[in-house]
Amino acid sequence: MRALVNHASGLTLERAYPRPEAHEGEALVRVLQVGICNTDIEIVRGYMDFHGVLGHEFVGVVEEIYGEISAELLHRWQGRRVVGEINAACYHTHCYYCSRGMPMHCPQRTTLGISGRDGAFAEYLQLPLENLHLVPDTVSNEEAVFVEPLAANFEILEQLHLRPTERVAILGDGKMGQLAAQVLTLSGCEVSMIGKHEEKLALAEKRGVIPRTLQEVEQHPLARNVDVVVECTGSAQGLEMALRMVRPRGTVILKSTVADRSNLHLASIVIDEIRVQGSRCGPFPPALHTLSQKLIDVRPLISARYSLDDALTAFEHAQQKGVLKVLVKV
Amino acid sequence: MRALVNHASGLTLERAYPRPEAHEGEALVRVLQVGICNTDIEIVRGYMDFHGVLGHEFVGVVEEIYGEISAELLHRWQGRRVVGEINAACYHTHCYYCSRGMPMHCPQRTTLGISGRDGAFAEYLQLPLENLHLVPDTVSNEEAVFVEPLAANFEILEQLHLRPTERVAILGDGKMGQLAAQVLTLSGCEVSMIGKHEEKLALAEKRGVIPRTLQEVEQHPLARNVDVVVECTGSAQGLEMALRMVRPRGTVILKSTVADRSNLHLASIVIDEIRVQGSRCGPFPPALHTLSQKLIDVRPLISARYSLDDALTAFEHAQQKGVLKVLVKV
Repeated sequence: MRALVNHASGLTLERAYPRPEAHEGEALVRVLQVGICNTDIEIVRGYMDFHGVLGHEFVGVVEEIYGEISAELLHRWQGRRVVGEINAACYHTHCYYCSRGMPMHCPQRTTLGISGRDGAFAEYLQLPLENLHLVPDTVSNEEAVFVEPLAANFEILEQLHLRPTERVAILGDGKMGQLAAQVLTLSGCEVSMIGKHEEKLALAEKRGVIPRTLQEVEQHPLARNVDVVVECTGSAQGLEMALRMVRPRGTVILKSTVADRSNLHLASIVIDEIRVQGSRCGPFPPALHTLSQKLIDVRPLISARYSLDDALTAFEHAQQKGVLKVLVKV
Repeated sequence: MRALVNHASGLTLERAYPRPEAHEGEALVRVLQVGICNTDIEIVRGYMDFHGVLGHEFVGVVEEIYGEISAELLHRWQGRRVVGEINAACYHTHCYYCSRGMPMHCPQRTTLGISGRDGAFAEYLQLPLENLHLVPDTVSNEEAVFVEPLAANFEILEQLHLRPTERVAILGDGKMGQLAAQVLTLSGCEVSMIGKHEEKLALAEKRGVIPRTLQEVEQHPLARNVDVVVECTGSAQGLEMALRMVRPRGTVILKSTVADRSNLHLASIVIDEIRVQGSRCGPFPPALHTLSQKLIDVRPLISARYSLDDALTAFEHAQQKGVLKVLVKV
């Protein structure tokens, strides 16, 4: 099959890459569309030391289910349109994380297109049935590709009780920041976004988000005035900026996975009793629900569309300044 | 009056320092005993840029109450033995923090012996009545001096739901670590302590705490196996060590206020969804209650006793290796 593969020597579009091997209880999914995530770009640069098929934001159709399976399950999944959670866990009863509803933290896990498991920039991928979610007819393929990153922003609300009277600031106007802003405005909060790109800030403003430039914030009494800061800068300096904005007893949600080290004064975290909360993957059902109900509009975040045959060009495009989501049709 | 004063030029024991000025609604407290805290030592080294009378861990007797006051209040406080919360807030109804039960975060606050208010290494100190707590007869003066740092450790349980089945590790075997261990073992948890000093680890072991050396931990599968790490190292490297020990979705309580910058990989906080929770001052009533009920024993933590006249020697002693709490009698 065709597949976009990350080797130590770089990205290659291969024409005769082997189809995923059959594993009991897993589904073979024919991929329809894939999104390029910043993590993909970081992996190409060496992050996670992953070699294999890239890609973890996808929508596809269940083509086959391996192993013995009931007629009911077969009927439920066969030929249906699905999205998939990317962490494939061990699900053993003695696993601390799997037995406590945290399979995404299973130490034995593989992660689609990120660690130990080939990803979605290919004609086919394979995931355990437990990872799949049906896509309602009211959600298009292009929208469905956003379910995974959108779920990662619903994770914030799993971790934190965000009160509708609180002030939220999103640090960063990229893909993650845009989705975070849309998710958190649903709570009724005052959400502001701090970014460098006028057109991206304008996009958020259409959703009721207050746009601010970095310069404004540094001169503004917004400093120490924000209940929740969501750090989506993708930069090692992001947390330090967030700490200058958050109020005493406030929360900083840390979303950027940066390989670099950060140099920080920690005393302010202690004196002001700040909660710094790391945040990664999240629940798919609220993402599917809000897309289906048109509460979230991801379509303005699509910057370009490519075919799998042009995936290398798509990756180049995705790394250009000012570009949001680049989609690849298989 | 006599007072131990921190000047830019260093610590001086003054014999004719002015008594605190009368402020409406505040009590003049005759100091009985004071404890030396690491923060005092850091202030002498330049932390907080505070010049004035040092000291914030004290027990004393209410000598006078300034302003008009009901006979009932006078009867309640006059001549009684008290300890005092160290943050004196504005208590205005329009103050975000004071009006929400967080006076310790009031931006207008002064802090006893730390910021904007003379402290306890003196014959007299002054605090608002709101800050005072009566000391039960069952709590000695020496024990009462520990109420403030003990309260700071009950703050951990205000911030975090610590389940009795969770594993806790205390990083650091100093004064703060010893108190944290005693407070957290009350929850029924398995508490281990990681430190460098055999005799301090042995002290904790008597309270049912599992002692471990730094070396053991680095070779031990304790790594990534701890639900809650309480970082009391007083070192800029403490958080990084804590992150090597805490499990995914676990919590690091950050207690050390260090002036130095820390150099950190933040990606593990995001990938493992760690909560890093800064933690400072805490509630006095549980500290008084547990001392009174003999659930906490602070007496083995007393390394030496001095008089106020020997306070400079006491400070030298407190900075020696292996020394825990040094008390000063006024």
